[in-house]
Amino acid sequence: MTAIRDVVSYINAHKNKSLERLIDLCEIPSISTLPDHESDMRQAAEWLANEMQSLGMESIKIIPTDGHPVVYGDYLNIEDRPTVLIYGHYDVQPADPIEEWSSSPFVPTIRGDNLYARGASDMKGQIMGVFSALDAWKNAGDGFPLNIKIILEGEEEIGSPNLAGFVESNRDLLYCDLCMNADSSIGNVDYPAIVYGLRGLAYYELWVYGPETDLHSGMFGGAVHNPAIVLCELIAGMHEADGKVGLPLFYENVEEISEEERLEINQLTYDDQELLSSAGNPPSLFGEFGYSAMERVSVRPSLDVNGLYSGFIGSGSKTVLPSKAMAKLSMRLVPHQKPAEISDSLRKYLSDNAPDTVRWELKELAHASPVVVNRESIGVRAAVDAIEYVFGVKPSFMRSGGTVPVVGMLSDMLEIETVMLGFALNDDGIHGPNEKLHLETFHNGVESYAHFFNNLAKSSN
Amino acid sequence: MTAIRDVVSYINAHKNKSLERLIDLCEIPSISTLPDHESDMRQAAEWLANEMQSLGMESIKIIPTDGHPVVYGDYLNIEDRPTVLIYGHYDVQPADPIEEWSSSPFVPTIRGDNLYARGASDMKGQIMGVFSALDAWKNAGDGFPLNIKIILEGEEEIGSPNLAGFVESNRDLLYCDLCMNADSSIGNVDYPAIVYGLRGLAYYELWVYGPETDLHSGMFGGAVHNPAIVLCELIAGMHEADGKVGLPLFYENVEEISEEERLEINQLTYDDQELLSSAGNPPSLFGEFGYSAMERVSVRPSLDVNGLYSGFIGSGSKTVLPSKAMAKLSMRLVPHQKPAEISDSLRKYLSDNAPDTVRWELKELAHASPVVVNRESIGVRAAVDAIEYVFGVKPSFMRSGGTVPVVGMLSDMLEIETVMLGFALNDDGIHGPNEKLHLETFHNGVESYAHFFNNLAKSSN
Repeated sequence: MTAIRDVVSYINAHKNKSLERLIDLCEIPSISTLPDHESDMRQAAEWLANEMQSLGMESIKIIPTDGHPVVYGDYLNIEDRPTVLIYGHYDVQPADPIEEWSSSPFVPTIRGDNLYARGASDMKGQIMGVFSALDAWKNAGDGFPLNIKIILEGEEEIGSPNLAGFVESNRDLLYCDLCMNADSSIGNVDYPAIVYGLRGLAYYELWVYGPETDLHSGMFGGAVHNPAIVLCELIAGMHEADGKVGLPLFYENVEEISEEERLEINQLTYDDQELLSSAGNPPSLFGEFGYSAMERVSVRPSLDVNGLYSGFIGSGSKTVLPSKAMAKLSMRLVPHQKPAEISDSLRKYLSDNAPDTVRWELKELAHASPVVVNRESIGVRAAVDAIEYVFGVKPSFMRSGGTVPVVGMLSDMLEIETVMLGFALNDDGIHGPNEKLHLETFHNGVESYAHFFNNLAKSSN
Repeated sequence: MTAIRDVVSYINAHKNKSLERLIDLCEIPSISTLPDHESDMRQAAEWLANEMQSLGMESIKIIPTDGHPVVYGDYLNIEDRPTVLIYGHYDVQPADPIEEWSSSPFVPTIRGDNLYARGASDMKGQIMGVFSALDAWKNAGDGFPLNIKIILEGEEEIGSPNLAGFVESNRDLLYCDLCMNADSSIGNVDYPAIVYGLRGLAYYELWVYGPETDLHSGMFGGAVHNPAIVLCELIAGMHEADGKVGLPLFYENVEEISEEERLEINQLTYDDQELLSSAGNPPSLFGEFGYSAMERVSVRPSLDVNGLYSGFIGSGSKTVLPSKAMAKLSMRLVPHQKPAEISDSLRKYLSDNAPDTVRWELKELAHASPVVVNRESIGVRAAVDAIEYVFGVKPSFMRSGGTVPVVGMLSDMLEIETVMLGFALNDDGIHGPNEKLHLETFHNGVESYAHFFNNLAKSSN
């Protein structure tokens, strides 16, 4: 038991080193969705492989996929101890709207209590939290307290299109006792919570095509159906007046949660007011009738438009009748909705409702199944104890509205349980401008990871 | 009568010169709506002033406005002959979507029977048609057959925001017997028509604002109203199921045309099939129930979305809940709709229908009144005779769906009648990619202008 105390001392003495390594990583604009950043993706993968080398890990490799590579490393020399597979992703979201950032997204900048950078919270800060904890165990403990495998994916922000294939082809490499997924949040710093449920995702690009080229809106306006208007009408029809999604059979397989779970969700100290403030203060909240805001973002499905484009969007006026219009649209799914059934539902809706004055095309960009993990697993118990020790308060349980495709994949394909353990906060602004990482929470996260490994090692005795 | 024959011979002998001058002018990217092109606007104005100089015109000046300048020149030395004020505009629409052009929009390119360039048809080809006719009268006739004033505006494509002020401040300068507006079309080369009616315009930018920044659609989707969806719902509500515009009192002042005029419109040889083909072949036509396509684009008002923007529109998937969404939207108006009343109607619709979960803002970008000109004026008769002589067929009359703000202004403020005489064709693709000018029609236009001036001069004897 001396080891963990020394490890924590080491962590406290090396805060600056942890932060500097994190800043180095955040400087690499590893945006997976933009082809221009392919070399940055490669650079980030190599940086991480080098970092694993410094941690004394073995079998380090950058494994190619049809998209961006997976970085792998392990340390498997501790007999009679469990093996934990640690998952993270090194890719980040695009930084636009770039003009809304107060400092450049890839020039990590400390202001007040926070580090501002794209990816600081989602999830380079979590990766470096794990690495710093391992570094402390290596240098101040008796070495790692258990066996470790790490996979760092490069395509999480684009829906992990090649991850299922990677897992399928690397079953032996990934064999382990449990998975710790660091791509997670504790919600609120005063009342930390552990995520045990994740919504699924179905993401599409919908195009509506009319005339072959943009037309003069004076010469043709009124006689040629406007694809932008048709697109708007199709999107408008996707919600009912009560806030429900209006696609056919959309709620058919949605599991109604128990009264007990509902009570638990609504007792979370993160309430509507805080949600409103985290959401950047729109005039008011909104959503499906009959459910609280916390329920709407956790156990109820949703449909959002993520982008809209048609015609002329420069400054001033251009009187075109656009030839086409596009919406990026996505749905968050809950148990037991299946992405394939949702695609069928959307296609049926479009077939039934698109007028024959236009053509339409639906491109499926990403999908992932919803998942709920076992709250009684040894991983979850080790995480609960670690957070309680470091934060001084027993974490509650919450279901996140976000999606982490790998959790469902590992559960389905490797039959292992996952614990979500990451230290993002609700107000970190992930995916938006001015994404930040709360530095004190980052540091507490490093300590928590150190305890988590210790707890897990002990639980196998 | 010898003069006109010599003039026409000169025109035929100098076709290449006319075309070369036109190509020179089309090379200048005089896009009025884009601030980057201010020096190009200036260059185009100076080019045209020089050209007027070569024509022997006098009092040439580039008159500043709060926006782009007006180019003016006159020749007033023919006693006992009427004075015609010729209107044109030297600005053009933006060239985007630039990737859909087969040749660069500002590298005028001849392919087949046409010259391809932004502004070739709308309306540098018409300006140079007039200039070539005047050049022929100067060099081969007995000089100009009547008195000429020319104003060339630089802001037609952005709704002529400074033209009313210009006309108001320059009443004496613009004093004349009639106006010939060259910003017009003859529709179809085999069955030319003269435009006698123009729709008005009301152009807006509508913004819907939700959260302060883009949000993660997983963390907030379902509990924060999506501004892109709200915008789509608002736009969807702007049309009824029967294709009518659904804004309050929108049709209140719309004049129902007479059975006689209706018959005339529907007897135009430019029919639905040709309209469909000119429109770049959308799957089918569409519009207000109870009216033919020709009526819909001429005597009935319309509402179009000209542009849509929200959130992430790059390639791939980004799971944002956008903070704001924008639509450019415009209405074409018919007698006796007033732009100010239409703005009130739209604001009332938005007030009544926008949910209180978002904020909205409506920016008015441009407006112009609808107009119908006197078909019995000496100007219209001179134009009819000129077209009949050159094209070998008596032109019919048509009402255009487009908008030429100056016509209503001159009629209201100077109390003069206008004849629309320009030689654009319905399939010229104006405002869209691959705008073209049909070279034979351009040449016939030069001859027609020469005859028009002659007819007008004779009619005053």
